[in-house]
Amino acid sequence: MADPHIVTAFDRDLEAVQAHVMRMAGLVEQALLQAAEALETGDEAMAARVRDGDRAIDDLEATIQTECARLLALRAPTASDLRVVLSVMRIAAALERSGDYAKNLAKRTLILTNMAPLGGTIGSVGRMARTVVQRLHETVDAYIARDTIVANDIRDRDRDVDQMYNSLFRELLTHMLEDPRNITAAMHLHFIAKNIERVGDHATAIAEQVIYLATGDLPGEDRPKADLTAGAGV
Amino acid sequence: MADPHIVTAFDRDLEAVQAHVMRMAGLVEQALLQAAEALETGDEAMAARVRDGDRAIDDLEATIQTECARLLALRAPTASDLRVVLSVMRIAAALERSGDYAKNLAKRTLILTNMAPLGGTIGSVGRMARTVVQRLHETVDAYIARDTIVANDIRDRDRDVDQMYNSLFRELLTHMLEDPRNITAAMHLHFIAKNIERVGDHATAIAEQVIYLATGDLPGEDRPKADLTAGAGV
Repeated sequence: MADPHIVTAFDRDLEAVQAHVMRMAGLVEQALLQAAEALETGDEAMAARVRDGDRAIDDLEATIQTECARLLALRAPTASDLRVVLSVMRIAAALERSGDYAKNLAKRTLILTNMAPLGGTIGSVGRMARTVVQRLHETVDAYIARDTIVANDIRDRDRDVDQMYNSLFRELLTHMLEDPRNITAAMHLHFIAKNIERVGDHATAIAEQVIYLATGDLPGEDRPKADLTAGAGV
Repeated sequence: MADPHIVTAFDRDLEAVQAHVMRMAGLVEQALLQAAEALETGDEAMAARVRDGDRAIDDLEATIQTECARLLALRAPTASDLRVVLSVMRIAAALERSGDYAKNLAKRTLILTNMAPLGGTIGSVGRMARTVVQRLHETVDAYIARDTIVANDIRDRDRDVDQMYNSLFRELLTHMLEDPRNITAAMHLHFIAKNIERVGDHATAIAEQVIYLATGDLPGEDRPKADLTAGAGV
């Protein structure tokens, strides 16, 4: 990228791979939003579509990993070019896992539609999902723009999602204590909330790849963390 | 590896990286076993050591990823040599996540020691942890030996751990329905069980890297799956 006028074979190959990454990111965001909507509206057909659609996301990841391996073998990139390929591989893996969480959300939605709804908890889960998708969207944009300022900002905002998860955890506990018949539904919603929080962690991991691209170093463990449920008695 | 008598610079570098992977695998196995033991015996000091020890595992992973990037840049490996480097990177990532789960187990243990014990459930969790560590150990051995027969066998046995998780899930539900005061402890144990199951999934992913090394292809989605809690009403 030193001279924008010289487009090498590597650049062309890379652009093709990055187009796949963008397409994959779009599919993952859509899967998460639709899974959350299916949960909120009890739309079983939509949940089933999200569940079945994960295969396309997995296939896209396999394509990206294969293309990256081919790029490494064929072009033997070094320095910043090598970093880009490695970061694409990590971002594809993070997106693939986020897609898995959307699929899991859809599968649990298909179970939850047959259970009594838990007050406004499902709405809170939906809001959490939309916040995380927004973060994922911004972080992929930051990656494409190589924007470390936005990436650092996204890293700092990880705390928001953790706090949403914590308050949801308390909400679920209340429902379970109130009526033991809520326990099974609450446990499924708890996993859903935890999985959405993990998508937020993957968004943060992608933001860290943006910083890695710019600096050659991955940011350390100093990232703010606010999931209290594993760190303090509830 | 075509001719065992010719040891290239690449082979020497790779051996050094693989030594790090073995050391990392040892640390992760130990962390999981000690975390499970701390949970079973209520040993808070041991749990705290596991929690704090995760940083060493993370550092080792960072070292491995850096060395692999250096190997790719310096030696520009192709064909099976390239596959080995890519598989080492994926295995290191799988081990790092398994270490995270051990740390999370330790953190939840520190909370659980202050709660009423849930019958024999903690013993079941301990057994599940030891089964998974055994699988992880075998799968890393299979990787070093490039033993696809063992790797395929490990892949097929993923079902065992999933079944252990399912019966644990039911056990926890019973405790919660019996006495709502058990709910918080049961939710922590539920996460612990789910995380141990995920370590089993990572062991399977490593086994798939052994197959990838031998064949150049990752095995598809036909892996047996038996986590029923996200696929059927409980």
